[in-house]
Amino acid sequence: MTYAHLDQHFRKLEALSHARSMLGVDEAVNMPEGGGEKRGEAISTLAAFSHELATAPQVGDWLEKAAAESLEPDQKLAVTEAKRDYVNITALSSDFVKRQVAASIKSEQLWRQLRPKGDWKNFAPALDTVIELAREEASLRAEKLKLAPYDAMMEQYDPGNRTADITPLFQDLKTFLKGFIPKALDAQKRRPKPKPVKGKFPIEKQKALGLELMQAIKFDFNHGRLDISHHPFCGGVPTDVRMTTRYRSDEFLSSLMGILHETGHGLYEQGLPKQWSNWSVGRARGMGAHESQSLFTEMQMSRMESFWTYALPLAKKHLGANTMPRWTVKDILAHVHHVERGYIRVEADEVTYPLHVILRYEIEQDLISGKLKTRDIPELWDAKMQEYLGLSTIDNMKDGPMQDVHWPSGAFGYFPSYTLGAMMAAQQWAAMEKQHPKIQGEIAKGSFDTVHNWRQKNIWDKASFMSTPELMRQATGETLNAKYFMAHVEKRYLA
Amino acid sequence: MTYAHLDQHFRKLEALSHARSMLGVDEAVNMPEGGGEKRGEAISTLAAFSHELATAPQVGDWLEKAAAESLEPDQKLAVTEAKRDYVNITALSSDFVKRQVAASIKSEQLWRQLRPKGDWKNFAPALDTVIELAREEASLRAEKLKLAPYDAMMEQYDPGNRTADITPLFQDLKTFLKGFIPKALDAQKRRPKPKPVKGKFPIEKQKALGLELMQAIKFDFNHGRLDISHHPFCGGVPTDVRMTTRYRSDEFLSSLMGILHETGHGLYEQGLPKQWSNWSVGRARGMGAHESQSLFTEMQMSRMESFWTYALPLAKKHLGANTMPRWTVKDILAHVHHVERGYIRVEADEVTYPLHVILRYEIEQDLISGKLKTRDIPELWDAKMQEYLGLSTIDNMKDGPMQDVHWPSGAFGYFPSYTLGAMMAAQQWAAMEKQHPKIQGEIAKGSFDTVHNWRQKNIWDKASFMSTPELMRQATGETLNAKYFMAHVEKRYLA
Repeated sequence: MTYAHLDQHFRKLEALSHARSMLGVDEAVNMPEGGGEKRGEAISTLAAFSHELATAPQVGDWLEKAAAESLEPDQKLAVTEAKRDYVNITALSSDFVKRQVAASIKSEQLWRQLRPKGDWKNFAPALDTVIELAREEASLRAEKLKLAPYDAMMEQYDPGNRTADITPLFQDLKTFLKGFIPKALDAQKRRPKPKPVKGKFPIEKQKALGLELMQAIKFDFNHGRLDISHHPFCGGVPTDVRMTTRYRSDEFLSSLMGILHETGHGLYEQGLPKQWSNWSVGRARGMGAHESQSLFTEMQMSRMESFWTYALPLAKKHLGANTMPRWTVKDILAHVHHVERGYIRVEADEVTYPLHVILRYEIEQDLISGKLKTRDIPELWDAKMQEYLGLSTIDNMKDGPMQDVHWPSGAFGYFPSYTLGAMMAAQQWAAMEKQHPKIQGEIAKGSFDTVHNWRQKNIWDKASFMSTPELMRQATGETLNAKYFMAHVEKRYLA
Repeated sequence: MTYAHLDQHFRKLEALSHARSMLGVDEAVNMPEGGGEKRGEAISTLAAFSHELATAPQVGDWLEKAAAESLEPDQKLAVTEAKRDYVNITALSSDFVKRQVAASIKSEQLWRQLRPKGDWKNFAPALDTVIELAREEASLRAEKLKLAPYDAMMEQYDPGNRTADITPLFQDLKTFLKGFIPKALDAQKRRPKPKPVKGKFPIEKQKALGLELMQAIKFDFNHGRLDISHHPFCGGVPTDVRMTTRYRSDEFLSSLMGILHETGHGLYEQGLPKQWSNWSVGRARGMGAHESQSLFTEMQMSRMESFWTYALPLAKKHLGANTMPRWTVKDILAHVHHVERGYIRVEADEVTYPLHVILRYEIEQDLISGKLKTRDIPELWDAKMQEYLGLSTIDNMKDGPMQDVHWPSGAFGYFPSYTLGAMMAAQQWAAMEKQHPKIQGEIAKGSFDTVHNWRQKNIWDKASFMSTPELMRQATGETLNAKYFMAHVEKRYLA
């Protein structure tokens, strides 16, 4: 049976992907610097093996044959999803990919060098080459997938994302947030200022607190662990999820919220159906769905009053009550609910964050369509920042269009996933709470079974067996609707 | 040029080997238990890719063609060594290897289960199957290599090892040690008993001491690191050597001497010529040569009076002088020079160790030739243990013929390398000290440059560019001679 043959083929690819993933984790967590060159060779050799295996022409034939075989319904879906995957990874020729990788490496290196100086002038030509190639890529993908060019780019990260659906959602959200942010800032002014934390926070104590909370929210330490790296991530494989954080000694919340964010990703990976681990249908649905899981954990649950009713005593136990003298839950919420307009997307709170994303979403569509020239990015960026967040970036390229690695590395169509994830998380939470009206009481007692089981059944078990809209429809009763996110921030920030 | 093509081919194999090696390290050091199954799949998939690539028939053609090309002398040697390697790895058919792997896995699992009970009766049939296959393997290798069967087996681990050379050396050593051990024990009785250490030894303190000594003897931490695992090893790749140890809290010497042993292996790997890292000629010469480097560091240098003149103050600094109250160098030497007849090879001191190895060397030759039946091992083992070390194992299979993993896993021809390594180390030290008569003074001051440079030039730089006997001849002026090891133990243990 061809299906069984494909199953073996995907098992080999899974093993190669396991190896690359773990070598990447080790590089970030353990590897001494001198090991870098040979590690790079090892990873790129494995990538070449994977690519060769995954794109081999006979795989296309096998997929056609398997689709015609008599299969169980799940197997049919697995073959369909594998075909979708195959079409995406064979959309670009090896020659094109080589040209693109070379240009991206050059531009990304230049970006690392010039970003600290905000030297747009010397960076722009390299970025322009990457954008030219991204346009070419978009048209190649569009042709292969029978999609509009920018939709074809998003298809890599979040299958099914279409500007026709997203633009109206983002339009609503943008209008809402432009009016909401001043109100949230006013409400914040009327509340007492956050009290500063006192003393030092040794890594070992922060780690013990992080581990206890990870355990409580049901991260499985028989299939994962927490380490330290410069840039926190959630990597590894579903049976061995490797999360990292970094610690500062002057405060503990940035690391702790980072751990909770990555734990959200990790729970999704650990919850995927193991029997499908070698098929693309067994993988997480996409970047938006993945971000919905990290934000469900970090932004929804872990910034709630109920969560801190449970977690604040633990924080005091591990870090010493003297570091937070006489703090109540309100004091910690003042920290984790702080809203502020800022230049930098990755430092933004959940209220201002979507505007950073919408700005990029709008600009990159114009870049891919050719409507916008590379040299005109700074002006448009500045105009939008002024309009959305009241900040000017025209003399600050470093904290303006040079702040993200995405464009320099050639990733166009990725940004919307962040905010789609935030909206999905809010909608999932609302649906879950509607079914389980006593959930806040459970969380306040440190009981996370209900929330865990809801996610397992409605999100993680589903893997890629359905589209993202269908996943949301089955889990929440409707496809993505911005009203849940709006209701969430109104409840949290106007109180 | 075919040579350049081979260079690329070996670069791919190096990358696959890098990946397998690092996945193995991570498994032993970091992996949570639940990750084991998928890790096993990943490693065996990479092994299958490697094997397919390494044994492809066209590689044989390339090697023939490259040998006829106009090459630099080093390149000629690289091709010759690669051919030797190719002949060895293609000596067995895939079918045979599969049968053998299946039998070894079964026997090794049974061994792990039955060894604690010393249940020879139920273990023997599985071992018998492995021995049958080892005989078949030896005759297949012998035919391909035009060697005697047992020599063909040793050829995998230590190219050039021949019973014709080793047997007389081992015969001399055996005769010598049977007479020497009682004298050493007598001398030991006349010295004061070792003082016990006092207090607890926290891991962090032991680790700091180990790291300081590793650094002093020039382990390169830009290309390696020290971690913890259940079974200590030296793994990784030459540009990123991963060493492990395990710690006990009631004493510090077993871990520390283990670290120094593995550092000897690590220095060899780090010292290999980087420009040849993808060719077999750039790898360590063999298991005997490798063991010579660990024993040179651990057994020769790190048990000398000069070494402890330097190291004892450091041990007191890190572990607290109160753990070794009023200890002088003599007190620590009483620990690290302790001689005792025992059942277990891996726990043996350097004086009794060779007799454990010679016993196995003698028995496994008879097993491969078919002269000895599996069921007759216990009796012969017991007789030899009585003769060499005055101990009976007839009622103690666990600490007799069931103590080692080698035979249950199908490794025959490996044991002699341990003692050849010990003899090589003694001979290398003698040659080095003859050229540098002030070396003990340098070591006592913590200066290890001379000894490091001597090894770099005479052993590590040479990699596999010459045979083991030639390596010894160039480094020490003569091929392996047991007299250096004998002189070494006489000097150390009869004083």
